[in-house]
Amino acid sequence: MKLYVVGFGAGNRDGMTAAAEKAILSSDLIVGYTTYIKLIKAIFTEKEYASTEMTRERDRVILAFDEAQNGKTVSLICSGDSGVYGMAGLVYELSEKYPQIEIEIVAGVTAALSGAAVLGSPLTNDFAVISLSDLLTPWNKIEKRLECAAMGDFAVVLYNPSSKKRSDYLLKACDIMLKYKDENTVCGYVKNIGRQGQESGLLTLSELRNMTVDMFTTVFIGCSETKIIGGKMVTPRGYKDV
Amino acid sequence: MKLYVVGFGAGNRDGMTAAAEKAILSSDLIVGYTTYIKLIKAIFTEKEYASTEMTRERDRVILAFDEAQNGKTVSLICSGDSGVYGMAGLVYELSEKYPQIEIEIVAGVTAALSGAAVLGSPLTNDFAVISLSDLLTPWNKIEKRLECAAMGDFAVVLYNPSSKKRSDYLLKACDIMLKYKDENTVCGYVKNIGRQGQESGLLTLSELRNMTVDMFTTVFIGCSETKIIGGKMVTPRGYKDV
Repeated sequence: MKLYVVGFGAGNRDGMTAAAEKAILSSDLIVGYTTYIKLIKAIFTEKEYASTEMTRERDRVILAFDEAQNGKTVSLICSGDSGVYGMAGLVYELSEKYPQIEIEIVAGVTAALSGAAVLGSPLTNDFAVISLSDLLTPWNKIEKRLECAAMGDFAVVLYNPSSKKRSDYLLKACDIMLKYKDENTVCGYVKNIGRQGQESGLLTLSELRNMTVDMFTTVFIGCSETKIIGGKMVTPRGYKDV
Repeated sequence: MKLYVVGFGAGNRDGMTAAAEKAILSSDLIVGYTTYIKLIKAIFTEKEYASTEMTRERDRVILAFDEAQNGKTVSLICSGDSGVYGMAGLVYELSEKYPQIEIEIVAGVTAALSGAAVLGSPLTNDFAVISLSDLLTPWNKIEKRLECAAMGDFAVVLYNPSSKKRSDYLLKACDIMLKYKDENTVCGYVKNIGRQGQESGLLTLSELRNMTVDMFTTVFIGCSETKIIGGKMVTPRGYKDV
């Protein structure tokens, strides 16, 4: 009885690891959020799928465990990495009721990495990853983390930078960043990474403050050393003079 | 004229993306640090390789550019992700002399993600990635980042936690963490991720302080919510009661 928790990367076959592909191919059932199932079904057309809506994370994990308990090999799929804001944590939290099921986490390329590759090399030194979604983390804790990341001069990657209910969260985050980072700090965004309609751009922190982004966008805020070279966002690491 | 900057993941074929494999297979020459060339040569035995020593990063990048300039398709390879403490930054820094060469960054699964999958799910909420190597970043800046990451209650991943010359850096880093994090904070380490001799373990922050690790080890320090479930290191994200 086996449950794979698979990060499939951005959503195209090229960005998937061989391990993710093997897990999916060896599974009797693939479980995931509707949007992700559509992406994976387009690649692996012959498999059996079961999907649940966005906010039904707990139901989705229990469905996956129950089907594994019934003897199926199951892959629970997540975009990006299954561990970074993915389902791996909840799987372990709910695993105690299913002691016979072997769990295997299959890591994938999270949006911080696939988005960075589109923009250039923004994360080549220390960085922090922060989600602006306060559905699962209180906003005051998110604010504290934004403040500390800015104070430490980290390059910062923002996941879930906006949604209908939280249209001003990116603006609020930028205002916190501006307490420590220069208004001309190099920033970038990538929308629909590795998917149809991919868009990206570079801008300053003060421009980012006034930008409207959607929930399919990943935002990158440079550290004090980040610069633009040939249209790319680059955080150097001091190798140049080695 | 094309230069791929390829992150090949932990070092086994399963952890590699299809894009990384394609880039390597389509290249006339693979350039990298000796240890990495050995790993990749074992997988793709028929390719042409050129290697340089660990600290010769600049030479390695120039070699890759020069060979691409001569008309070869070249892959410059890095373990993990090519953007996270990898060669992508230096490639852009040196790219201005080679305007005709098309650069493509191929993202990979960095040790934070592949190591997390071994330990469980330590990075399922906000996290910071910090290298303890002061070869390229001044130590006082590293200390500041450690302090800010601990103050923000981030889960923290430490790269390059030790070396012969820096045997007490992990201890120093833990002492900074202990100013803000409880001594019983759940921590973990993974050595030789995805390679022969992989080892991992969980321990408390005060135990980690007194541990000796090598440069092939990646260290994980939990946030205040990180716990152990069934022998795994798990950072919950609040889904459980959704």
